[in-house]
Amino acid sequence: MTQSFSFVVKHRDGAARTGAISTPRGTIRTPAFMPVGTAATVKAMYPDQVRALGADIVLGNTYHLMLRPGAERIAMLGGLHKFMNWPHPILTDSGGFQVMSLSRLRTVTDKGVTFRSHIDGALYDLTPERSIEVQNLLGADIQMQFDECTAFPASREECERAMALSLRWGERSLSAFKSFAAPGRALFGIVQGGIYPALRAQSAEALISMDFDGYAVGGLAVGEGQPLMLETLQSAVPLLPSNKPRYLMGVGTPSDIVGAVERGIDMFDCVMPTRSGRHGQAFTWGGKLNMRNAAHIEDMQPIDANSACPAARDYSRAYVHHLFRAGEYLAPMLLSWANTHFYQDLMAAIRASIAEGTFAELASRVRAAYPSATVAEEAGPALSEV
Amino acid sequence: MTQSFSFVVKHRDGAARTGAISTPRGTIRTPAFMPVGTAATVKAMYPDQVRALGADIVLGNTYHLMLRPGAERIAMLGGLHKFMNWPHPILTDSGGFQVMSLSRLRTVTDKGVTFRSHIDGALYDLTPERSIEVQNLLGADIQMQFDECTAFPASREECERAMALSLRWGERSLSAFKSFAAPGRALFGIVQGGIYPALRAQSAEALISMDFDGYAVGGLAVGEGQPLMLETLQSAVPLLPSNKPRYLMGVGTPSDIVGAVERGIDMFDCVMPTRSGRHGQAFTWGGKLNMRNAAHIEDMQPIDANSACPAARDYSRAYVHHLFRAGEYLAPMLLSWANTHFYQDLMAAIRASIAEGTFAELASRVRAAYPSATVAEEAGPALSEV
Repeated sequence: MTQSFSFVVKHRDGAARTGAISTPRGTIRTPAFMPVGTAATVKAMYPDQVRALGADIVLGNTYHLMLRPGAERIAMLGGLHKFMNWPHPILTDSGGFQVMSLSRLRTVTDKGVTFRSHIDGALYDLTPERSIEVQNLLGADIQMQFDECTAFPASREECERAMALSLRWGERSLSAFKSFAAPGRALFGIVQGGIYPALRAQSAEALISMDFDGYAVGGLAVGEGQPLMLETLQSAVPLLPSNKPRYLMGVGTPSDIVGAVERGIDMFDCVMPTRSGRHGQAFTWGGKLNMRNAAHIEDMQPIDANSACPAARDYSRAYVHHLFRAGEYLAPMLLSWANTHFYQDLMAAIRASIAEGTFAELASRVRAAYPSATVAEEAGPALSEV
Repeated sequence: MTQSFSFVVKHRDGAARTGAISTPRGTIRTPAFMPVGTAATVKAMYPDQVRALGADIVLGNTYHLMLRPGAERIAMLGGLHKFMNWPHPILTDSGGFQVMSLSRLRTVTDKGVTFRSHIDGALYDLTPERSIEVQNLLGADIQMQFDECTAFPASREECERAMALSLRWGERSLSAFKSFAAPGRALFGIVQGGIYPALRAQSAEALISMDFDGYAVGGLAVGEGQPLMLETLQSAVPLLPSNKPRYLMGVGTPSDIVGAVERGIDMFDCVMPTRSGRHGQAFTWGGKLNMRNAAHIEDMQPIDANSACPAARDYSRAYVHHLFRAGEYLAPMLLSWANTHFYQDLMAAIRASIAEGTFAELASRVRAAYPSATVAEEAGPALSEV
């Protein structure tokens, strides 16, 4: 087992690339999709199931975990990996995005953010230093700088202010990380700047000079639509170092993912497979199905007869429809499983196609099944798993 | 695979016995505990999990399934086994008990029961003939006669009236079964008569003369308490033929089960492991734990370090406590799994101890961990999984 964090690109197909991130807890094959385990669980799934589907890493939410059960408590209990029975790599966000979307009465100053918990109204301070402290108490393998993510639409001035603040917070995050983090852990910077190429360039340049272990593109899929999102990636991604992993936060639909991979993105996370699953939507290679639809009431077909996933293959749509109507636990259990399988299967196909030089064909196939709505258009802007 | 229904007793230890029921869909080791799959799913579990824990048979509820998705629809979709992806034996109840406990505006006549659905208020008739028709549309391997179950307390007159009605309905159920049922399916009669030994004896005698494939004891664990329940079994069970399976309906706690096995009962069903699991209670060989209890907030121990079940063994109590507080799906998923494992483990231990002639020691151990409350005292009288 390697004791340091590293990244290697193994194959390229245009700007798309496939490779591997090594961490002390294991290897992450890229492009990677990280299932979201908000409150220390990927909703409606056992951790062994998530692993068996091919997920090399999951995401935990700093905001949720610091409120409940608390970062110090998780540390006392042996860290997040042990707590949630997931011994493989974990990435945590900084808490910034969810403070903005979920908390009450927040006040942003240069120092950080003061907010009230959406659970019990208790008052919290979150600063770059505290965010990094929390992420290290959790024991995250990949940590994110504290940043401010602007909504869409936002003026150029507003985006510039938030981007500049995020750079100052990035510097403080890095300095805190250097004093708190155990060896082998990594910290990623987050490129901000909205849909303004000059701001994105300024953000990228400044972050690169700080030398993070990887770089995320933040503030996308918040309502700007897929064309503008891809345009922003088109200009921003080439500015990032090719020897570091690149992570597009909170994305996305299958067609968002192939569009981003095509532009050089290596990592993704999104609540879509599990949240949509809880709401009755099933992802397949033929497109999306709504299992709540009355058309399925006597539909004897499985969700996908060709799937390797028992949830997609071994139960009729009529049965899944019945489970949703009856409000049974098994309904979200089956669709979260089937959809997480589909997303991992999609990523495996993407990796294989890049290695074989056939990524463009795969991308066309995915776009045909998944026309271009972004995750934000599909699911609304609040993408956290509350 | 045998094509007929049969039962063999292999070992006896006092009145307790262990054996096997053979059905065309497989063998049921007795004493058996049947997990309850009300609406065509054992709540919060995958069917493969239920099977892997050692369950040879599950129970489906005629009342729930005839209302939603409908018996004719399930038949059209290939039957209940295929619908719920459970190719092993299934027992269905007659619907009578749940009509009484769940439906609205019910009217009982000699012909049957007219009631309104608790889901949408639609009007239904349920007669012995229709109950058997529904059970055969579902394709149940073991079917139950239509009966009227009295509440507790009920006067001797009321119990006698209901018992006599149940006998007439039993005769009509048997006659309908003979015309509807595929070969290899079985029909059980249900002994009624409340806590009155003379009524129980009269019921048993009349049912035996009709020659059912097995006999259930109904109308117990409805509030009478464990001592009165066991007393009733003590007098009623010896009246039943020793070469037919004996089923105590809706029971029970671990100590109810050992008390009933001690008196010659072979089959059980109860919502307790899954329902209690959804409410935070965990069953272990050391007794019951309430995972919602604040005492577990930083409790690093697993639910049961010696359990073979991952749910009981691989997650800390602190984590399960957190999942309940956060309202996560994984909370009921883990405890339904752990508790269903415990119940199947209990039955396996009961079967082994009878074969070895050490049942009394096992029974003492179970009683020490589970003092004598019955399932009705624990869970309230409405035992259906709504």
